[in-house]
Amino acid sequence: MYKVKVFVTLRESVLDPQGTAVKDSLHSLNYSEVSDVRIGKYMELSIEKSDRPVEEVVKEMCERLLANVVIEDYRFEIEEAVAQ
Amino acid sequence: MYKVKVFVTLRESVLDPQGTAVKDSLHSLNYSEVSDVRIGKYMELSIEKSDRPVEEVVKEMCERLLANVVIEDYRFEIEEAVAQ
Repeated sequence: MYKVKVFVTLRESVLDPQGTAVKDSLHSLNYSEVSDVRIGKYMELSIEKSDRPVEEVVKEMCERLLANVVIEDYRFEIEEAVAQ
Repeated sequence: MYKVKVFVTLRESVLDPQGTAVKDSLHSLNYSEVSDVRIGKYMELSIEKSDRPVEEVVKEMCERLLANVVIEDYRFEIEEAVAQ
């Protein structure tokens, strides 16, 4: 069993209106020290062992479903979970 | 200048319909090895140095705006960015 953490973020060149809205909200709460906010997605997947290497499976899942690679970047971390 | 990464996840006891939908989609793409998906938010903040410790500021921002502590947990990582 693997625990996989996937981070999906907008590419640097893509505008992030949600991040801008959060930044403006933080400014209106007087956190003027915040100069930039970018918002992304964070996913935790539990994956059973299979015949294929887990890195290959996760990369394929990211490309096919979890990230929109036209406008988003992704990265992931794989941890081997101890069987209960 | 600090780069802060904030992770907001649903508490373990809270149902995650979005995660279930993603899991079902992965199963219909034949990734049957995926046994669980939990979806959260990932935020990257750029924060200027101020009088207050940055840990204290980020914790307060999470409690007040970035996370709904009734149903969500948060954690964050702080990196000191090199001035350009």
